[in-house]
Amino acid sequence: MNTMRAAVFVEPGRIELQEKPIPEIGPTDALLKVTTTTICGTDVHILKGEYPVAAGLTVGHEPVGIIEALGEAVTGYEVGQRVIAGAITPCGQCHPCLGGDKSQCGGKVMGGWQMGNTIDGCQAEYVRIPNAMANLTLVPEGLSDEQVLMCPDIMSTGFGGAESGHIRIGDTVAIFAQGPIGLCATAGAKLMGATRIIVVDGVDERLEVSRKLGADHVINFRRDDPQESIMALTEGRGVDVAIEALGTQETFESCLRVLRPGGTLSSLGVYSGKLTMPLEAIAAGLGDHKIVTTLCPGGKERMRRLMAVIDSGRVDLTAMVTHRFKLDDIVEAYDLFSHQRDGVLKVAITP
Amino acid sequence: MNTMRAAVFVEPGRIELQEKPIPEIGPTDALLKVTTTTICGTDVHILKGEYPVAAGLTVGHEPVGIIEALGEAVTGYEVGQRVIAGAITPCGQCHPCLGGDKSQCGGKVMGGWQMGNTIDGCQAEYVRIPNAMANLTLVPEGLSDEQVLMCPDIMSTGFGGAESGHIRIGDTVAIFAQGPIGLCATAGAKLMGATRIIVVDGVDERLEVSRKLGADHVINFRRDDPQESIMALTEGRGVDVAIEALGTQETFESCLRVLRPGGTLSSLGVYSGKLTMPLEAIAAGLGDHKIVTTLCPGGKERMRRLMAVIDSGRVDLTAMVTHRFKLDDIVEAYDLFSHQRDGVLKVAITP
Amino acid sequence: MNTMRAAVFVEPGRIELQEKPIPEIGPTDALLKVTTTTICGTDVHILKGEYPVAAGLTVGHEPVGIIEALGEAVTGYEVGQRVIAGAITPCGQCHPCLGGDKSQCGGKVMGGWQMGNTIDGCQAEYVRIPNAMANLTLVPEGLSDEQVLMCPDIMSTGFGGAESGHIRIGDTVAIFAQGPIGLCATAGAKLMGATRIIVVDGVDERLEVSRKLGADHVINFRRDDPQESIMALTEGRGVDVAIEALGTQETFESCLRVLRPGGTLSSLGVYSGKLTMPLEAIAAGLGDHKIVTTLCPGGKERMRRLMAVIDSGRVDLTAMVTHRFKLDDIVEAYDLFSHQRDGVLKVAITP
Amino acid sequence: MNTMRAAVFVEPGRIELQEKPIPEIGPTDALLKVTTTTICGTDVHILKGEYPVAAGLTVGHEPVGIIEALGEAVTGYEVGQRVIAGAITPCGQCHPCLGGDKSQCGGKVMGGWQMGNTIDGCQAEYVRIPNAMANLTLVPEGLSDEQVLMCPDIMSTGFGGAESGHIRIGDTVAIFAQGPIGLCATAGAKLMGATRIIVVDGVDERLEVSRKLGADHVINFRRDDPQESIMALTEGRGVDVAIEALGTQETFESCLRVLRPGGTLSSLGVYSGKLTMPLEAIAAGLGDHKIVTTLCPGGKERMRRLMAVIDSGRVDLTAMVTHRFKLDDIVEAYDLFSHQRDGVLKVAITP
Repeated sequence: MNTMRAAVFVEPGRIELQEKPIPEIGPTDALLKVTTTTICGTDVHILKGEYPVAAGLTVGHEPVGIIEALGEAVTGYEVGQRVIAGAITPCGQCHPCLGGDKSQCGGKVMGGWQMGNTIDGCQAEYVRIPNAMANLTLVPEGLSDEQVLMCPDIMSTGFGGAESGHIRIGDTVAIFAQGPIGLCATAGAKLMGATRIIVVDGVDERLEVSRKLGADHVINFRRDDPQESIMALTEGRGVDVAIEALGTQETFESCLRVLRPGGTLSSLGVYSGKLTMPLEAIAAGLGDHKIVTTLCPGGKERMRRLMAVIDSGRVDLTAMVTHRFKLDDIVEAYDLFSHQRDGVLKVAITP
Repeated sequence: MNTMRAAVFVEPGRIELQEKPIPEIGPTDALLKVTTTTICGTDVHILKGEYPVAAGLTVGHEPVGIIEALGEAVTGYEVGQRVIAGAITPCGQCHPCLGGDKSQCGGKVMGGWQMGNTIDGCQAEYVRIPNAMANLTLVPEGLSDEQVLMCPDIMSTGFGGAESGHIRIGDTVAIFAQGPIGLCATAGAKLMGATRIIVVDGVDERLEVSRKLGADHVINFRRDDPQESIMALTEGRGVDVAIEALGTQETFESCLRVLRPGGTLSSLGVYSGKLTMPLEAIAAGLGDHKIVTTLCPGGKERMRRLMAVIDSGRVDLTAMVTHRFKLDDIVEAYDLFSHQRDGVLKVAITP
Repeated sequence: MNTMRAAVFVEPGRIELQEKPIPEIGPTDALLKVTTTTICGTDVHILKGEYPVAAGLTVGHEPVGIIEALGEAVTGYEVGQRVIAGAITPCGQCHPCLGGDKSQCGGKVMGGWQMGNTIDGCQAEYVRIPNAMANLTLVPEGLSDEQVLMCPDIMSTGFGGAESGHIRIGDTVAIFAQGPIGLCATAGAKLMGATRIIVVDGVDERLEVSRKLGADHVINFRRDDPQESIMALTEGRGVDVAIEALGTQETFESCLRVLRPGGTLSSLGVYSGKLTMPLEAIAAGLGDHKIVTTLCPGGKERMRRLMAVIDSGRVDLTAMVTHRFKLDDIVEAYDLFSHQRDGVLKVAITP
Repeated sequence: MNTMRAAVFVEPGRIELQEKPIPEIGPTDALLKVTTTTICGTDVHILKGEYPVAAGLTVGHEPVGIIEALGEAVTGYEVGQRVIAGAITPCGQCHPCLGGDKSQCGGKVMGGWQMGNTIDGCQAEYVRIPNAMANLTLVPEGLSDEQVLMCPDIMSTGFGGAESGHIRIGDTVAIFAQGPIGLCATAGAKLMGATRIIVVDGVDERLEVSRKLGADHVINFRRDDPQESIMALTEGRGVDVAIEALGTQETFESCLRVLRPGGTLSSLGVYSGKLTMPLEAIAAGLGDHKIVTTLCPGGKERMRRLMAVIDSGRVDLTAMVTHRFKLDDIVEAYDLFSHQRDGVLKVAITP
């Protein structure tokens, strides 16, 4: 009887809506009634079988919702509060978490990513949030579901790329790819004080959004060579920080090639195949280059800070929600989103 | 008439002693009378034609000497003072130097490396030191030439590898290759508070020196598999920092494979060919890994600090000078050093 | 015959315009023909005899000008180029400069501040710039003198306060006093990603400028208690970073009292008397507080970055120049500025 | 019936052994059977009524023990395991903990310090450890209770002073006071690469221990003026980092007076009265000085790292346990320790 609808991975190529039991919670968990969620590029990898999860798993890792129930060891929250949780739900109490590596919770690669990966996710009517006290984050009054919908993953990841690049006032930054994460990296770079932001993508509509979020120069790689253009714009100097937001050999390599000596490549992409670094692109190891990879930071303090950005009006990401679907129509939403039709950036899913 | 003997690159395979004019100096230069110098692995690359320099160039970039003359704009020094200068001689006044990227002086890759690269070097009776005020460093009384001979390059580079890894108290560190630079990285890792240092090399004599400089575990890759051994020693956890001190695909890749999620690969090697990162070794970009390359830090403040380490007795590198030659016999010294004969670590050359 | 007009400190209470010889330059200096300069609060301290300088010294340390002559050891510049130099003119080559402490050049407190302090300054037709290669900074085309006039001191200092506070995305920041430096700290805090900026001053006109530069909340201390207001605004939590931009016991202490545990007080003020820290305000030493003082960062890379901020349009400081004077009328300008009459923020002086 | 002996604060001047119920534990707690503990200087402040705690509170915050029971939400541990917990027991899950301010858990000053402060402590047969999963740390085999007894507070605090000072290879460091915490700061400074450590105390026996732990120069302030001596030793340059390990105006001020421009005062002391900074000692706010206060870092990752230091043999603190008492004789131990009789450094208390 206590069942709910949930988007479930069945087999490669098939995610479908199923009736499943509402999750049970343990002493340190919370149960959320999901009010809005979204689909991530990673979910598409799951759909296509490119990223393996167990058959029968509920997918989704970006929840906005209402606290429905709390484990008996959870204090400081009340049923009925409106919250979000990050895509990464660190425990806060293991050695890596206490050492600052919260995304790698438990010392396993991506250990902090549980929802929609190792436990049931949030493209459903209800979702269990593990380590509730470290992850439930009250939504400030006055912010809508859609306004905070990017916080759990896209905004946290994109901003993380800017932060890991240690962008400083006056930096010149190049960002390769302006999908949702790249766009958030653009907004994050501006927010940290970059004064020249050069972005690269192949879709003019996205480059228009880039401009609104902070890009000073936009390059459509279908028309112009990004490497040449960036070196020309910087008068041969190269950029201080290059952010990779796609996950291909080509963009990774282009980042290296436009970096100034001593610069930082901040990598957000999920790669497949293998990555190669041509020697001249890393100066044979003698250019004082840094390469940093970043998995979406999580935990409630992170979420609080991101919502503070939204609440301050410094950054407005609402234009990123281009389409809206009911949970009942999520298969259709996957179809649109995975084929990047109709100028889609992000979809909002409501049960 | 004002000539001197100098080791000159003639053509690939041939460095020979020639009679050359004593260098003339400009207003911001100094002329050093060299009292001791040494041969670097990079010089061997030059000898073999693997790193291109102009025919006729005097090689060498690790000078200990006496100030013979000072340019008219140089203040704060006196003829007759005993000094060293780093292999990297930053100007301290260009944009990258003022921004902290002194090894990349002028904004060119390796721009700070001039001696024995773009201008005549110090395997000679005299050497011109550019940007003298930023580079001449008084040798503390009581320290011999050989005691400070590692400071200009080997020690600065090796320590730089530990520093770029941001080693913290309690870290576990793996260091691949224990040639002179790797040995200095071992000493540097210990000096920064690493409490478990695991080193890898194929020569037992070097591994014995490693132990003296701070290694807690030594692995001879001819007998044991480094990756397996390190993962066993760390109970599957991996290391916080891995230092690459050789410059091969194999050691670079091994570093990645023994890193814990969130760990740092600090790379010191000079690579040839291309570098490849297998995806599982960098967790497809999701492991919060950092890769940092470091060129030997230079400048007189760096040299002062390194000599302070020697002077304090915290680190004793004198065992690294295994052979001594006269400048007149430098061709013989190259022969020994380039073939790694007779257990050679570093040679001291005196005019 | 080679004389010029210059504003000279004669005795406490008296700065007057005198005819003086045009400065002679040494091999590493440049001579600038000043096109625009300004008066700093520090100059008023000099005028009043509160900060001692030698009688006969030309005052002023914020020059915009044209290169008139270059010392023979200066390369990379040409006579006729339009440049600025920072108030602090580090040599870039001494131990502290190479170690990163450029404002404390030479290892002496404020050692980097020479112009208008230990050597003749720039409230004159010509000024000698020491360490020219480290300090002359080309002004980007399209920027007016007044647009870059804040860079040498006010903007560098104010931004420095934000930077030393290590402001991060999502931080709440309080800034005490909104004179020119405090206003620039406000702009800097916003540029670094602070999402809640609370400023305190006693002049409503200044608080209006604060709002334009990024303040989210303004407190006029004549009407409201700053400490109570800030604690109320932060729901008792306190601020992440508090910036002191005045130099009094009261504002310093207020900063401490509104800091959250673990927060940072970034101090820009020049204090007189002595500073006292009530124990409860620093939690008896147990609150993980940080107190950081910052002297105006200088050097040409700093100036380049600040002008890049202006050039990008991210920050517009032109509203800060409220009055304009000819050099001939500089005594009148001092009178206005030192008495803070007529809503003055900064004055532009042109020869 | 389920009672135990415990050292209880009764009123100022009186801590006595009482029979109390064994603590009950909640779902996220653990119960430890204490095998060894010690008395801290802070406990003496409690005894004297200088630091207020509730009458009836069990004192003590440095436990070594065996897990006796685990709350039902605690996983990853087993009854019978030998562990320590830090004096500071952060939850790891609140906003400040997730933001890195674990000592200020909950956002309250010293919020992470619970044992022997806001809840019953460990000078007893049993102690309840709150937030067990973030704090219970397995003791490596082969380490004795006394070997790890300094980790929970003294070593963590002293090392924290060195870490907050951001000591770098080649730094000159002065440490004022060489009680247990100052001695650990000395060991920590050496471990981080300081090459010149100058310590100040009034007890020659302590200065002898300082030498063993890393001091290069010792100054007995009863014989020599510390400020003069340090400035002479550094040839007027001052020190890079000064660590205050006592908590008095005099030592705090001396730290400021021996700092070089740009240097850092790392403060560990617990102050009473008020702290004053003479203007010349902080260069009127223009010396780029930093002042950092540090409360003992806690959490199990911190404890693991400190025990790794002990286990590596890099630092040996066993000489710091100078006296041993049974819990039954703890009043006697307080008497000895609070009067600093008989050369006492630290006492070991065993039930």
